[in-house]
Amino acid sequence: MAVVDLVREKLGQSVEILREQEIDLWLTLVRETLLTTDPCLELIAGTYSAWTGAFLVSATGEKTAIVGRFDVASVEEIGAYEVIGYDESVRPALRETVERLAPQSIALNYSDSDAAADGLTHGLWRLLQDTFSGTPFVDRFMSSEAIVNALRGRKSPGEIERIRGAIHETEEIFDVVTHALRPGLSEVDIAALVQAEVEQRGLGYAWGRDHCPAVNAGPDKEVGHAPPGQFTTKRGELLHIDFGVSSADYCSDLQRVWYILDDGESSAPHDVIEAWSALWASLDAGVAELEPGAVGWEVDAAARESLVTAGYSEPKFALGHQLGRSAHDGGTVLAPRWDRYGAAPGGVVEEGNIFALEYGITAPGRGYIGLEENVLVTADGIEWLSTPQRELWLVS
Amino acid sequence: MAVVDLVREKLGQSVEILREQEIDLWLTLVRETLLTTDPCLELIAGTYSAWTGAFLVSATGEKTAIVGRFDVASVEEIGAYEVIGYDESVRPALRETVERLAPQSIALNYSDSDAAADGLTHGLWRLLQDTFSGTPFVDRFMSSEAIVNALRGRKSPGEIERIRGAIHETEEIFDVVTHALRPGLSEVDIAALVQAEVEQRGLGYAWGRDHCPAVNAGPDKEVGHAPPGQFTTKRGELLHIDFGVSSADYCSDLQRVWYILDDGESSAPHDVIEAWSALWASLDAGVAELEPGAVGWEVDAAARESLVTAGYSEPKFALGHQLGRSAHDGGTVLAPRWDRYGAAPGGVVEEGNIFALEYGITAPGRGYIGLEENVLVTADGIEWLSTPQRELWLVS
Repeated sequence: MAVVDLVREKLGQSVEILREQEIDLWLTLVRETLLTTDPCLELIAGTYSAWTGAFLVSATGEKTAIVGRFDVASVEEIGAYEVIGYDESVRPALRETVERLAPQSIALNYSDSDAAADGLTHGLWRLLQDTFSGTPFVDRFMSSEAIVNALRGRKSPGEIERIRGAIHETEEIFDVVTHALRPGLSEVDIAALVQAEVEQRGLGYAWGRDHCPAVNAGPDKEVGHAPPGQFTTKRGELLHIDFGVSSADYCSDLQRVWYILDDGESSAPHDVIEAWSALWASLDAGVAELEPGAVGWEVDAAARESLVTAGYSEPKFALGHQLGRSAHDGGTVLAPRWDRYGAAPGGVVEEGNIFALEYGITAPGRGYIGLEENVLVTADGIEWLSTPQRELWLVS
Repeated sequence: MAVVDLVREKLGQSVEILREQEIDLWLTLVRETLLTTDPCLELIAGTYSAWTGAFLVSATGEKTAIVGRFDVASVEEIGAYEVIGYDESVRPALRETVERLAPQSIALNYSDSDAAADGLTHGLWRLLQDTFSGTPFVDRFMSSEAIVNALRGRKSPGEIERIRGAIHETEEIFDVVTHALRPGLSEVDIAALVQAEVEQRGLGYAWGRDHCPAVNAGPDKEVGHAPPGQFTTKRGELLHIDFGVSSADYCSDLQRVWYILDDGESSAPHDVIEAWSALWASLDAGVAELEPGAVGWEVDAAARESLVTAGYSEPKFALGHQLGRSAHDGGTVLAPRWDRYGAAPGGVVEEGNIFALEYGITAPGRGYIGLEENVLVTADGIEWLSTPQRELWLVS
């Protein structure tokens, strides 16, 4: 499926969502997208805008793009917008178009809670205030977060297919790691092996190459968004990898754990197995709640309570974030109602959402046990998109 | 020079600039930089921030970063910030740090004119309003555009070296094109040749791969930010390429023009040579004005007047934009005072600025003649960083 087909699919969806939300107009305003970009732009245009560009989607189904002269040809290629080119200023055509459509509500991409709906810069917000000052439209601006949450969150068939592809590639690369693993490999060695596979397959990284994959060997590594270092795989310790690829612009995000058997061992030690089981029990407790209509924080709470009741400490992060064009795709999160998540944990789960579910426990003296699986929300529950790692992988 | 060294170099510069501008504090606030990012972040941190992260540079020289727990390790690696990690909310530590520093002025990354200084989203602006509501600091926010203009614009020795490297690679790739050129090659063929070189050399693209290089063959192609198409090189016509690479995170941006000799010709036709000369005369007229202290629009006006006086139509774009981490690096532009440029043409040229200078003319029946060269502003004029294409390149 070509990029323009995917863009047209999402544009069609966006008109439906505007009608459902009873919002008249959705305005995405961008400027020099080499420097700053709005994550909505790739979804509804998949193009670059050198000068200030306005992309308007109306509940009437009309779609208008007002872009600099030299960007006209590439926006016309989408075949979905009436394209207006300008030379000196975006404002006259923007004002005329909004006046002609006469919307009662105009959604803009700003949000207190959702980074995916917060692509409008404050400078561009000021430009809109100035451009529409003295008109009734200046009082009709509102956050687009409900639109963006639905549009990014409800994955189309084309999007689901692409995410499946990214997950499949990731699992194949984990297999390569499994075959290569032995004691004495450094985190840097293992990352190099993974990255050679990514590049040979022509894939991209789901996040910054410097810490994709994140590789954590043994108990002394501080787990986080940090680059692989010099810790090595050792007998009697764990190896943990957090890794995702971008394939045809869509991402995977998975974690896998290996245990390197000590001399004489044929399975992982009791404490590790116990932690592993508790972690899976808590993920399953979350999964049991995950269905259309569930509220984000309630799903997290079920999983969190299971883990804490089993005597483990509470993870300092969300059970679930959405997955799509970005590894952290915004919208509803399955997270506690902490300030940093804003209103996002109060969001409602919908059919077609794809979540990365993750939790982790430190096993003292062994290393970090992190689970992360990718699931699709179906009409009555979930479908596992990844092949769940139900057992620790043993390295002899 | 490692990334962290470059970051430390720019951080040192930023403290000097704060003192010079008499601004007490510069606050860069970001959130989930996989989705939206502030172009200042790569300059002063070169890192990823999964949660909301605040990077504070004080005129006292103090540098503080308040980031999510899992981002602490990677920010600590920079070795320049006092790093405060948080779990639930960025606000308490942010408020405490600002209260302790007690700044009279707090620069934020929003700007009406400069995309490079407009990375703060409107949602994050609202977060700051809310976090500091009821404190005196809420009235001390101001635009950081003067800081960002100076910091991005005054290239450090390490940055100049990297841009030289990108230009050198680009010129070598143009040579490869020159050797391969003959009549009957399509724009797509030529772009594939260029991109094979880029990828073999391990370089990145200065802008989106779909139109980097832009390849324009003959008189029927609409010149702009559009992908290469099916037009082919023909005898008696021009080939124009607009191309740049990213090497060690810094960009080049150059245009080159070839003329494919017709049967019996040993030079380009008179009309083409005349247009070429007029274009160079206008670029040189701009260069004559380009020195520290010059005002952006005045430099453009000198070049523009030269071209119009020679009887050619006025280019619908700026004579000069800055070049750096981005091919369009923000700050002062050498451009007419059109609305879309905001206040940027009123900026003052400084020593250490690097500009891409470009103008173009359509030669009827032949194609597009576009010149673009990269220059460094020195104490008393400019140094050509690219080897200026003073003559059309002839293909026999």
